[in-house]
Amino acid sequence: MLAVTILGNNSAIPAFDRHPTAQVITLDDHLFLVDCGEGTQTQMNKYKIRRSRINHIFISHLHGDHYFGLIGLITSMGLLGRHQDLNLYGPPRLIDIFDLQLKVADTQLPYNLIFHPLGEEGVLVKDNRFEISCFKVFHRIECWGFIFRQVRPPRRVNPEKAKISGIPASFFDRLKWGENYETQQGIVIQNETVTEPAPKPKSYAYSADTIYNPELALKVKGVDMLYHETTYLKDLEERANKRYHCTTVQAASIANIAGVKQLLIGHFSSKYDRLDEFEREAREIFPETYLAIEGVSFLVP
Amino acid sequence: MLAVTILGNNSAIPAFDRHPTAQVITLDDHLFLVDCGEGTQTQMNKYKIRRSRINHIFISHLHGDHYFGLIGLITSMGLLGRHQDLNLYGPPRLIDIFDLQLKVADTQLPYNLIFHPLGEEGVLVKDNRFEISCFKVFHRIECWGFIFRQVRPPRRVNPEKAKISGIPASFFDRLKWGENYETQQGIVIQNETVTEPAPKPKSYAYSADTIYNPELALKVKGVDMLYHETTYLKDLEERANKRYHCTTVQAASIANIAGVKQLLIGHFSSKYDRLDEFEREAREIFPETYLAIEGVSFLVP
Repeated sequence: MLAVTILGNNSAIPAFDRHPTAQVITLDDHLFLVDCGEGTQTQMNKYKIRRSRINHIFISHLHGDHYFGLIGLITSMGLLGRHQDLNLYGPPRLIDIFDLQLKVADTQLPYNLIFHPLGEEGVLVKDNRFEISCFKVFHRIECWGFIFRQVRPPRRVNPEKAKISGIPASFFDRLKWGENYETQQGIVIQNETVTEPAPKPKSYAYSADTIYNPELALKVKGVDMLYHETTYLKDLEERANKRYHCTTVQAASIANIAGVKQLLIGHFSSKYDRLDEFEREAREIFPETYLAIEGVSFLVP
Repeated sequence: MLAVTILGNNSAIPAFDRHPTAQVITLDDHLFLVDCGEGTQTQMNKYKIRRSRINHIFISHLHGDHYFGLIGLITSMGLLGRHQDLNLYGPPRLIDIFDLQLKVADTQLPYNLIFHPLGEEGVLVKDNRFEISCFKVFHRIECWGFIFRQVRPPRRVNPEKAKISGIPASFFDRLKWGENYETQQGIVIQNETVTEPAPKPKSYAYSADTIYNPELALKVKGVDMLYHETTYLKDLEERANKRYHCTTVQAASIANIAGVKQLLIGHFSSKYDRLDEFEREAREIFPETYLAIEGVSFLVP
């Protein structure tokens, strides 16, 4: 299972009860946080995100609407008694800011904050369940996108067949990952007889703030779901280009070229009160477009 | 007129829909911001605070729940096209953090951010209407309180008498500040004949995070309203002392010794869901105690 929960969908200035960028990626049992605008920890309270389950945080770039909420989150994690390691991935200067802020507060985190400075495109972290890689996007300052891939989704347990074979429900989680079951009598139940093959691994790309550039489509080619910014409606293409941002039509074109299944759009300018026009414009080019509405979870198809 | 509007009343971690510390002081036509926890700009949107009217911001200390929202506010002010100077008062290292954050974002503010590092107790800023001074409080790291005083409150215009004397309403604001009116015929109407004397100047002290110390009462002696932190209820006095914070009873004792008219309490620990016990305990010692509830404005008596 791969899903994206939107905690913030606005650009720059909080407005109309929309918050700066933050997304939680759920990949089977793992939670990942991508970007962390001001107020993200409050949004996590509101939408019941368990921060203790987050062990990896990814920051795309050092414009404030993408990371001003991070120092509050990592100090709160400390105050709440976190002990397990926290891995942070972002542009190299990010850690200088936190080091200074922790120093002036005379604060020591009770857990290890392991910082991984972004430098080259490629795989950042991989285990037997997931693989996360980064790629450069095209913004006014150094800016990164991230791709989340299931490496090996769980197999589907057929509970009736499993029960008939005498396998207890407590073993189902191990069945999902391909184990055989051995009864007390030493009989081995082959996994394939009580499970169905895993679905195709899913993938999600978060492309962060970027000017329109078809090269980006190559970097995210074939992912199941793409998040692409649409700061402006199509009539403001000139302004979008000048500010290194995109319009609805530009984002939808990238989705088309990249051949993704679904497109999620967000990072809406604070000048817009209503968002329906964003959806309408993007769907003209790429019908499977969805607005990144705060509080909503999108299941990658 | 001197009033305090509460934007945040919680300590450390946002909880139960309470936000970290921030207060707006209204002194006649001026707005001042004291402390600026994460999410303060969102709270300003919610409670309709016009940030363009804020020209002076005071930061008590460099624990995150008192300033993590400031970088977002000052960059938003820039994005909203602010041009007038902004004066910022706080511990010296505060500006190092902002300089670094603006530099990595390749951002230049379109207005002057004038930083005044706090170093000695005494008057920080004074004009013919107000005087703001700072004093040290007793916390784990360098921490400051602030006193806001009306220097010269406006006189009270008697609109009937003024109208009978032929003074147009457009001149009333100048009457408040003591001017005489001269008619087109050259007759001078003496200010005292159409106004009443100004009330006694009001004062408000914000004492920030502190351990219990009766010395603090001397520093705020005789102010009309005192804000004092009450992180804990009285049964946790030992914990309060250990963490350089105060209980209800300790705050109320300071108010008694200082001889203030009213006490405002806040900075409630995230462990408390309900706040009524804070009010009850403090009022046993100092009856004129009020809870600093978010969104409420308190008129200094």
